Amino acid sequence: MADIKYEILETIGVLSESPKGWTKELNLISWNGRNPKYDLRDWAPDKEKMGKGVTLSKEELQQLKEILLTKEIS
Amino acid sequence: MADIKYEILETIGVLSESPKGWTKELNLISWNGRNPKYDLRDWAPDKEKMGKGVTLSKEELQQLKEILLTKEIS
Repeated sequence: MADIKYEILETIGVLSESPKGWTKELNLISWNGRNPKYDLRDWAPDKEKMGKGVTLSKEELQQLKEILLTKEIS
Repeated sequence: MADIKYEILETIGVLSESPKGWTKELNLISWNGRNPKYDLRDWAPDKEKMGKGVTLSKEELQQLKEILLTKEIS
């Protein structure tokens, strides 16, 4: 991760927290100074490490919202 | 990926499709025969390759839905 620069511009929400303090978060992040994207991934306490995750455009996030509104999650 | 077995039990929805045909999908997937989890990631056409992604429990997905319902995505 040494050469990846990022800036968390906004924490939209926290989905969960593990017993060891890792949190799964939806953030708005600028990677390497580029335009910010929405980002869903796990983070160690104090953001010391990051897990794998996905980045999402605004359109993808809005589509995800539509999907979650129309599908029953069981 | 050779030794990861997975079974897509349900495609909940497709968030987007790239010009090269990769799709960002929310699926319900059983990894290595374990209990199914929700999974958000990119897939190549015909599921030949997968990108990085996140798995989500039902509770995390419901929390994500709450977040998307209460936050304005701009």
